[in-house]
Amino acid sequence: MSYDVQLVERTLAEARQAVLDELQRIFAERRRTGYGPLYDLLADYPFREGKGLRPAICLASCRAAGGRTEQAVLSATALELFHNAFLVHDDVEDGSEFRRGKLTMLKMKGVPVSINVGDATNVLAIEPLLGNTRRIGVRKALLVFREVERMARESTEGQAVELGWIADGRFDLTDQDYVRMAYKKTCWYTVVAPLRIGVICGSLPGLFAPLEEDLTKLVELGFLAGIAFQIHDDLLNLEGDVGLYGKESGGDLWEGKRTIMLLHFLRNAAAADLKRALKILTVPRRKKRADDVRWLLKAMTACGSLQYGRKLAMEYCDRALECEQRERPFPNDSQDRRFLREMLHYVIDRTK
Amino acid sequence: MSYDVQLVERTLAEARQAVLDELQRIFAERRRTGYGPLYDLLADYPFREGKGLRPAICLASCRAAGGRTEQAVLSATALELFHNAFLVHDDVEDGSEFRRGKLTMLKMKGVPVSINVGDATNVLAIEPLLGNTRRIGVRKALLVFREVERMARESTEGQAVELGWIADGRFDLTDQDYVRMAYKKTCWYTVVAPLRIGVICGSLPGLFAPLEEDLTKLVELGFLAGIAFQIHDDLLNLEGDVGLYGKESGGDLWEGKRTIMLLHFLRNAAAADLKRALKILTVPRRKKRADDVRWLLKAMTACGSLQYGRKLAMEYCDRALECEQRERPFPNDSQDRRFLREMLHYVIDRTK
Repeated sequence: MSYDVQLVERTLAEARQAVLDELQRIFAERRRTGYGPLYDLLADYPFREGKGLRPAICLASCRAAGGRTEQAVLSATALELFHNAFLVHDDVEDGSEFRRGKLTMLKMKGVPVSINVGDATNVLAIEPLLGNTRRIGVRKALLVFREVERMARESTEGQAVELGWIADGRFDLTDQDYVRMAYKKTCWYTVVAPLRIGVICGSLPGLFAPLEEDLTKLVELGFLAGIAFQIHDDLLNLEGDVGLYGKESGGDLWEGKRTIMLLHFLRNAAAADLKRALKILTVPRRKKRADDVRWLLKAMTACGSLQYGRKLAMEYCDRALECEQRERPFPNDSQDRRFLREMLHYVIDRTK
Repeated sequence: MSYDVQLVERTLAEARQAVLDELQRIFAERRRTGYGPLYDLLADYPFREGKGLRPAICLASCRAAGGRTEQAVLSATALELFHNAFLVHDDVEDGSEFRRGKLTMLKMKGVPVSINVGDATNVLAIEPLLGNTRRIGVRKALLVFREVERMARESTEGQAVELGWIADGRFDLTDQDYVRMAYKKTCWYTVVAPLRIGVICGSLPGLFAPLEEDLTKLVELGFLAGIAFQIHDDLLNLEGDVGLYGKESGGDLWEGKRTIMLLHFLRNAAAADLKRALKILTVPRRKKRADDVRWLLKAMTACGSLQYGRKLAMEYCDRALECEQRERPFPNDSQDRRFLREMLHYVIDRTK
């Protein structure tokens, strides 16, 4: 696959820097007037090295819609904070050990502090959204709030679906079950909302808001891109190591997480392998044996499950590109439209 | 103490009903379009029998400022939802067993689901706040958002202070330490924000917003009333039983929670008692013995610590009444102003 790696990486780095500058300002203000030790904890995840995918999509979408970076930078910062709040809580919910190459908040500070840090990070995201009233006007600021509400609602619903599978010990799930869950849990907050919020922030000030139908086009695009992203993310979790990818290798298997690859394996494994796999998956994480997890990963690879996931991610990527071509959610060709297309290749080709 | 119990209880019941009607509407809509099982869990806490103190303060404050109930009912509903989200997470953070006479979400569904239910309840509160734009106009709706941001920020900071004491094993705390923590953790979201949001919603539409100085008056009043409320709440926890008060008896002692009464005891106990008390308090909850907790409660009572708390709560109540008289944050005498004053007696006299 050939694509413009430099364009993608440069745009990601620029977006990350713009958001880090805003975050520095917000944290300085909170440390000055609030309870400092709390904000030291809050600053941990956002300042770890991340891709900054969501802010980059939001800022590029704003500019592709005709706006300037500064019109969307407060919203992009809020998105990054919501993302980090989500990660802190998600790590507790999954019992995860590593995040972005370091120990999770859970492992460092325990459950009570982690819950509060996640809550406080969500609160911190409201300030830049209120700042939007001066930056892009009251009406657009409220439209952004509406998007954030929808995004957060979809995420918690997707999380509920996944936690329900765990509580009920469900493994008999189809790809469609998975895709529906990930549409809610991942696609909205990783791609759909960043795209839509970017367009809202960047649309011409004369037209008080973009047309609902223009925003609707972005749901399908964000859905297709988000699924490609999530499948590839799950692949990295299976194949990557903590040094590069930032999480423990095979962490999803330790957690018994239902991924496209695992579901493919469970549908296609021989009876004896299926039995062994289900036994391993239903054992609580702390009682799992490393040998068993290694066997499972090997069996999945032998069964073609990882290859299946890679192929599916590529298909979703292609469908996203077609959708973007067909629907043309952005008015003109531009560097930013090009970034958003190239980024689709990047999300299924990245190694971290 | 003589006060108009009927007025207080009638006003609380009316406010509770108005908010329950809104909640029914919100839940019906979410169940219709979203992932139903999640909203079944979300509905648990809000529909348990609660006092509905925060909505009642918000609605009365709105009317006392010259407005009508419907102008504040969406905000009051949001406050009740934020309160319930806070309780779900707080119960996980404290490892609590009972809430409003039933098992906590933690004990029924475990940590992961409880975290997500709290998060989703916070999200659910955003919808009525967005509905405010049509109900009271865009500018007031944004002012309410600003109050909510402040309220949630103060709560998470207060929570962080308290969790810090636990993490550091701190028991050498003064009343002032406690009051500063409770000002953030309790007063803002129980009294200050409900009062201020009520005034914002109820102020004349011609004046686009109340003056900042009128809102500032409500901070001191809410602070004094909130501390009285919290001390009495902690007293009920020590003295009450699960049937009436809704939490396990002495639950705060099991959790090692730093209350005014406990801090008084630790400052005044004889050396041997102090040593024994600290040993009991620092043992993790699941390893505590019922005998020890009973001894501690008895020793605190004998030391006059409960009496000290009662006296302090009464002093804060008196100071709140004086403050209300002096600052006159509401323009005229009215039934609602009377409710807000009578309610001050109620919060330190209630048995649940």
